[in-house]
Amino acid sequence: MSTIELTRRYQFSASHRLHAQQLSAEENRRIYGKCNNPMGHGHNYWLEVTVSGPVDPQTGRAISPSMLDRLVEATILRELAYSNLNEVVEHFAFQPPTTENLALVIQQRLLERWPQWFSGEIRLVRIRLEETRRNIIESEP
Amino acid sequence: MSTIELTRRYQFSASHRLHAQQLSAEENRRIYGKCNNPMGHGHNYWLEVTVSGPVDPQTGRAISPSMLDRLVEATILRELAYSNLNEVVEHFAFQPPTTENLALVIQQRLLERWPQWFSGEIRLVRIRLEETRRNIIESEP
Amino acid sequence: MSTIELTRRYQFSASHRLHAQQLSAEENRRIYGKCNNPMGHGHNYWLEVTVSGPVDPQTGRAISPSMLDRLVEATILRELAYSNLNEVVEHFAFQPPTTENLALVIQQRLLERWPQWFSGEIRLVRIRLEETRRNIIESEP
Amino acid sequence: MSTIELTRRYQFSASHRLHAQQLSAEENRRIYGKCNNPMGHGHNYWLEVTVSGPVDPQTGRAISPSMLDRLVEATILRELAYSNLNEVVEHFAFQPPTTENLALVIQQRLLERWPQWFSGEIRLVRIRLEETRRNIIESEP
Amino acid sequence: MSTIELTRRYQFSASHRLHAQQLSAEENRRIYGKCNNPMGHGHNYWLEVTVSGPVDPQTGRAISPSMLDRLVEATILRELAYSNLNEVVEHFAFQPPTTENLALVIQQRLLERWPQWFSGEIRLVRIRLEETRRNIIESEP
Amino acid sequence: MSTIELTRRYQFSASHRLHAQQLSAEENRRIYGKCNNPMGHGHNYWLEVTVSGPVDPQTGRAISPSMLDRLVEATILRELAYSNLNEVVEHFAFQPPTTENLALVIQQRLLERWPQWFSGEIRLVRIRLEETRRNIIESEP
Repeated sequence: MSTIELTRRYQFSASHRLHAQQLSAEENRRIYGKCNNPMGHGHNYWLEVTVSGPVDPQTGRAISPSMLDRLVEATILRELAYSNLNEVVEHFAFQPPTTENLALVIQQRLLERWPQWFSGEIRLVRIRLEETRRNIIESEP
Repeated sequence: MSTIELTRRYQFSASHRLHAQQLSAEENRRIYGKCNNPMGHGHNYWLEVTVSGPVDPQTGRAISPSMLDRLVEATILRELAYSNLNEVVEHFAFQPPTTENLALVIQQRLLERWPQWFSGEIRLVRIRLEETRRNIIESEP
Repeated sequence: MSTIELTRRYQFSASHRLHAQQLSAEENRRIYGKCNNPMGHGHNYWLEVTVSGPVDPQTGRAISPSMLDRLVEATILRELAYSNLNEVVEHFAFQPPTTENLALVIQQRLLERWPQWFSGEIRLVRIRLEETRRNIIESEP
Repeated sequence: MSTIELTRRYQFSASHRLHAQQLSAEENRRIYGKCNNPMGHGHNYWLEVTVSGPVDPQTGRAISPSMLDRLVEATILRELAYSNLNEVVEHFAFQPPTTENLALVIQQRLLERWPQWFSGEIRLVRIRLEETRRNIIESEP
Repeated sequence: MSTIELTRRYQFSASHRLHAQQLSAEENRRIYGKCNNPMGHGHNYWLEVTVSGPVDPQTGRAISPSMLDRLVEATILRELAYSNLNEVVEHFAFQPPTTENLALVIQQRLLERWPQWFSGEIRLVRIRLEETRRNIIESEP
Repeated sequence: MSTIELTRRYQFSASHRLHAQQLSAEENRRIYGKCNNPMGHGHNYWLEVTVSGPVDPQTGRAISPSMLDRLVEATILRELAYSNLNEVVEHFAFQPPTTENLALVIQQRLLERWPQWFSGEIRLVRIRLEETRRNIIESEP
């Protein structure tokens, strides 16, 4: 059986403020610039989730795309869409909500549920998070 | 002399919360849905500014694009980029920061300064504001 | 009150075969080329619906975007998404399903329901249908 | 019969140097900045040609798209694709090859041939020339 | 000699119906949803073909892009463009024409001809097939 | 500490002429076609630079994006933006300025400065250069 990769793309709009609690106000401004503005700002994030698996000869698919959509909806989009990331994501009470950290949070959430949703042959290959057309983060488990 | 239209595109990231002060909490939720979430959310806005004017036979241009860039930077981007719209735009102390109202605010600001910056032959034709790829507002003075 | 234009974008995937019943097989092949292939082909269509109206000072909106979405869903997308246009659109039993005719059918359907859905101040301004990135049809009522 | 607008998009890559002969070297540098660099630079131009006409009830089309393609190929792309605009366009021996002037040249060339190619009902509505995603010129005859 | 990867992008429009012969009508509807509609639907597919090879110091290229274009035209586009995939691709008489299977068919066809067209240093690295902006398949030989 | 990849995108407009000195005029025309036109042509190049590194638990970042921007500005964009590549890049006095060679030049320049700018944990992963939407080169050190 041939193995392929399937990528699904999702968009969500959220706001955030880049601020590290362990750093002084001056350091925060120096490191994050205008992204440290007290009231925050926001983005239309494009999330790509890539999975791999063998193509089932009967259905011609490695994975049900609607199941992946449901998992992403349940664990990511329901909470993050139209949200303030600093507020709704528990991890961001302690860590700055950079795109880097957001990608790792999303990856972690998907990995935790993965064994319940998909068989062992289906692997989470990559998370890609596009904050703007010029700033993109990728993470591999 | 031939008249042409020049369009320049700008991007800025900002956050907002859709909330109308004269309406009840229930009405706000019904009208704006998740866009009424208390802590707000955000977008990468694409702003297009279109001007028209006769093409100068010597320079081959109707308008200096860098002058338009400077006007937009000074009156729009400096304040709105990486901002919370509800906070930084005075008008949004009284009006909800919908894309419709934001387009009108931008148009109003440009019109106020226009006579100082450009000759009478140069006209502000249109403001186009893309909040997401699926929601776009256009306004003509 | 200021008047603005709101544009919403929708995508649907459909198939069609360009064939005019009143023309001979040779004429059909000459006019439509490979688009006349007997078994048809398909596209991801991008539909843009543009409406205009005065901005309500209380809500900051000219129109409820979710109402427009529901009207487009009910009259256009429910039937056309994942369909064969020659089969599902009654008009295409008699007329070839060109992008031109499809835009006119969509416009006609929206105009018929318009008075029930929106007040007289809200006007359907334009339908824009992108068949491919290189072939685009626009229609104004 | 209903009238619609058809837009076709074309891409070509060309180089140019912005330089006005009647101006001094200093003025040229001040007006055009780095676009005045002696050896020139280049772009991938996107050209949109929009025509309007009544939809023929038999063919479902206002115009043959392949005829428009052939006209644009013959009068525009054959000469401009992979060219240096200052060299190949006679008009740019006297005028700077700005996007504004290039749009007017393209419009002029299409208008000259129009009566030979299309019936009186078919009108050239608009030329749109995108030099970069942030700099766009539109011209209407 | 340095090794690089070259990617070429192609678009073709085709229709298909997702239907697995070994499954019941109910199972087909459950698995494929509206993609199982009897008359089919269609897409504008974007195909990316990625090859790798050492850069020739004389020509500055690893591969002639026009040769790759000719191979893709001859083995893929000539048959698939403006086609019904279920009809024209022999493999889809037995297998459902999912994007997964289509990517594997394209890869197989290129691999079969590869040794005749390119030297051993030139390798087919990857096939990427974008059915819609939200559904993407990648395959590596 | 988790390792992620960060990609930044840059655009620059430049012109070039594909011509290999060691080849005859006929061979140059045969290999490069219209890209060998004597006066050259040009493109809007999109450059993507991808780096990897461990995410700093305090700042939530692997690398300062503005430092990468400054390095790319200093070593690549300052010279290449609005330039003629054959003229300004010393390497192209001897080698044809293909996208392949341009990617290798950019990679080489970044690698030379890398140790001065970034710690050993930060790695240059990939250069991606998009000449047009249909012609893309990737290079890995």
